[in-house]
Amino acid sequence: MSDGVFTSRWAPRPEHVLEAGTVPGGFRLGGSACGVKAAGSAELDLGLVLSEAAGTVSAARFCDSGVLAAPIVVTREHCDLHAIRAVIANSGNANAATGEAGIAEAIRVQEAAAAALGLSPREVAVASTGVIGVLLPGERIAAAVPALVERLSPGGLPDFAEAIKTTDALEKSAQLSVELPSGSIHLSAVAKGAGMISPRFATMLCFVQTDAALTPQSADALLGAAVRRSFDRISVDGQLSTNDTVVLMASGQSGVHVEPDSEDEARLGEALDALLLALALRIVADGEGARRIARVHVRGAGEETAARVARAVANSPLVKAALFGGDPNWGRIAQSIGAALPGTAPLRFDISIEGIAVARDGAGVDHDAAALARAVSGDEVLYEIGLPGEAAEAELFFSDLSYDYVKINAEYTT
Amino acid sequence: MSDGVFTSRWAPRPEHVLEAGTVPGGFRLGGSACGVKAAGSAELDLGLVLSEAAGTVSAARFCDSGVLAAPIVVTREHCDLHAIRAVIANSGNANAATGEAGIAEAIRVQEAAAAALGLSPREVAVASTGVIGVLLPGERIAAAVPALVERLSPGGLPDFAEAIKTTDALEKSAQLSVELPSGSIHLSAVAKGAGMISPRFATMLCFVQTDAALTPQSADALLGAAVRRSFDRISVDGQLSTNDTVVLMASGQSGVHVEPDSEDEARLGEALDALLLALALRIVADGEGARRIARVHVRGAGEETAARVARAVANSPLVKAALFGGDPNWGRIAQSIGAALPGTAPLRFDISIEGIAVARDGAGVDHDAAALARAVSGDEVLYEIGLPGEAAEAELFFSDLSYDYVKINAEYTT
Repeated sequence: MSDGVFTSRWAPRPEHVLEAGTVPGGFRLGGSACGVKAAGSAELDLGLVLSEAAGTVSAARFCDSGVLAAPIVVTREHCDLHAIRAVIANSGNANAATGEAGIAEAIRVQEAAAAALGLSPREVAVASTGVIGVLLPGERIAAAVPALVERLSPGGLPDFAEAIKTTDALEKSAQLSVELPSGSIHLSAVAKGAGMISPRFATMLCFVQTDAALTPQSADALLGAAVRRSFDRISVDGQLSTNDTVVLMASGQSGVHVEPDSEDEARLGEALDALLLALALRIVADGEGARRIARVHVRGAGEETAARVARAVANSPLVKAALFGGDPNWGRIAQSIGAALPGTAPLRFDISIEGIAVARDGAGVDHDAAALARAVSGDEVLYEIGLPGEAAEAELFFSDLSYDYVKINAEYTT
Repeated sequence: MSDGVFTSRWAPRPEHVLEAGTVPGGFRLGGSACGVKAAGSAELDLGLVLSEAAGTVSAARFCDSGVLAAPIVVTREHCDLHAIRAVIANSGNANAATGEAGIAEAIRVQEAAAAALGLSPREVAVASTGVIGVLLPGERIAAAVPALVERLSPGGLPDFAEAIKTTDALEKSAQLSVELPSGSIHLSAVAKGAGMISPRFATMLCFVQTDAALTPQSADALLGAAVRRSFDRISVDGQLSTNDTVVLMASGQSGVHVEPDSEDEARLGEALDALLLALALRIVADGEGARRIARVHVRGAGEETAARVARAVANSPLVKAALFGGDPNWGRIAQSIGAALPGTAPLRFDISIEGIAVARDGAGVDHDAAALARAVSGDEVLYEIGLPGEAAEAELFFSDLSYDYVKINAEYTT
């Protein structure tokens, strides 16, 4: 069978996870065109996902920018994050840096969706992605909600995915079944993000659905762990968004109760980890203009130091340009390690690329240059870095820096 | 008269500073080709600057990478930094990440230059720029030193400048006279750096000469202040080098004694500040592929916070790509401010671009879009950011992110 969304060697499909072709029981989704992206256009730009079950349990995670978009403020402050039944999300406008007026528009959309769905506004999360600093046309969106509610269906996942896209080229959704010891459940997710975190285009969103029955504590713990292992470990350009949002909803419609600290919970966690990591890697691979992606793995030193080195390598435009060019220039990795750890010279670092040792104890070592050149010309390149002391580990997945990245971010004119 | 090196509105020529056309008294310089850049090539790649005066006073500054190049280690540990009489610098090889063998090669070059000049090795600084991780061919360089010493002359500044260049396109040298209350002195400087701090190509070096008579304390204080106001405030890609070196030598041959805390010292400081800032801005303007440069000025908050915000804006590939494209997208500035200050939402920031207010109290304000579009299409763009609280200030000068930046850093193959 096809591995579907599990296309990277770094996020293999767990054996107990299969393609299902349907969303979990109890969910309906849809998308419509309401003219936020472009007035009068037929481009889908408003998506809605609903869990029909009254006892739905949810969990959510958001970015932590000092310039937080209005939909995040409204969802965090006006929702019961453990009992979200619906998410309404638009593309084309981030509703960020829009002040009190932006908050009011987000609430207007939230209330319109709640009214049309017969829910409390506290059960409806809102999310936005698009240009920063422009007021959301909340009235236009609210007017489009009733018709969208009519169109919701279990088969509406593709429309929902289309509606939250911006510059995304790769598909980032999956509809899976997961074999748990206590029975089979379904798990689906839709993400968007063109690999970068861009204020205009590409904010990262992900909405996850399951028909497993979860406690609020399990939902929160499982989502938190999966996000830390996936979306927290990717970088295209190191730019934190104003709008990042991840919401998990569990309808319980499968009848399979996942108890805290059970084998069921562990297996569902494995499936969720694998799914979100696969989606995260597709976001990186979809990085605007990206040709190849890399994984940097740092071992040694303390946790904070290892993470700082991983971030310095992943965000270095020199390393990223070399990755794009298929240039086995390990000197740029050495430079970014040194830059991350000022005052530590002479630092006894090791570097290997795709298993080929290129530096040891802070200096280059002889290696097979032809083999190295071949190794860095593939779709995925692994950089391993050793630091002296302790034994912390840190890893990040990142994309290259390409002509098209510059083009996409320079040539758009407002 | 021409303003020579003072081409930016942000580094005007002080009135008491004039073009001189000669190096300060007591200095001889030169450059030669010894095959480090390319074996057998006539390309200059070895430069030497000598102060003939026995009482020469000097000062130096270096970068602080954890992966520090061998020439910096040797200069810091084996030289009397207040009494450097000569600097020998090569391009084509950074002699970084080369371990103990690299240290030995740097010492070999230092000793060869000292012997040929009749100086103690403690009076000879070494500097390198070029590819990281490849052992310096010290023997080849040492063999070329005696002939280079023969060619040293007061007119050798252009050859010296040529010898330390890598991808530099703009000239970065000046030969000035400076009117001090106690008399006229000369001041010259040669810098290299293609605007980026690249491990392969572009490490920033600057060598400054004056015939003023300075105390070691004055030399150190003047150089330290000027470096903080110039080379410490520029970024092309936020990548700290392994090799950055700045050396000031004062021969005293003018007979003008600059006393500590005197008006002479203040006026010389002004001239040195202006010169190094002008050279720093030329490094930014020469940023590989750069079309325009920007200045970000942050006012408010504490010193650490203001500096962090300035750095976040200056190093954001999204802001830099918009700068390249002449795109007045202030949302990207808002995004980078928020990313720099997680957990502070709602943050009441102000942004103005070239004097046009685009955001106030954290939200966009109406502005003349046509005037803004014109303002961001010039050679230099000013971003001013206001933050709540206190009244610290921070500023950085930075280049855009262009196709050629990617090309230069991706298409070179080892």
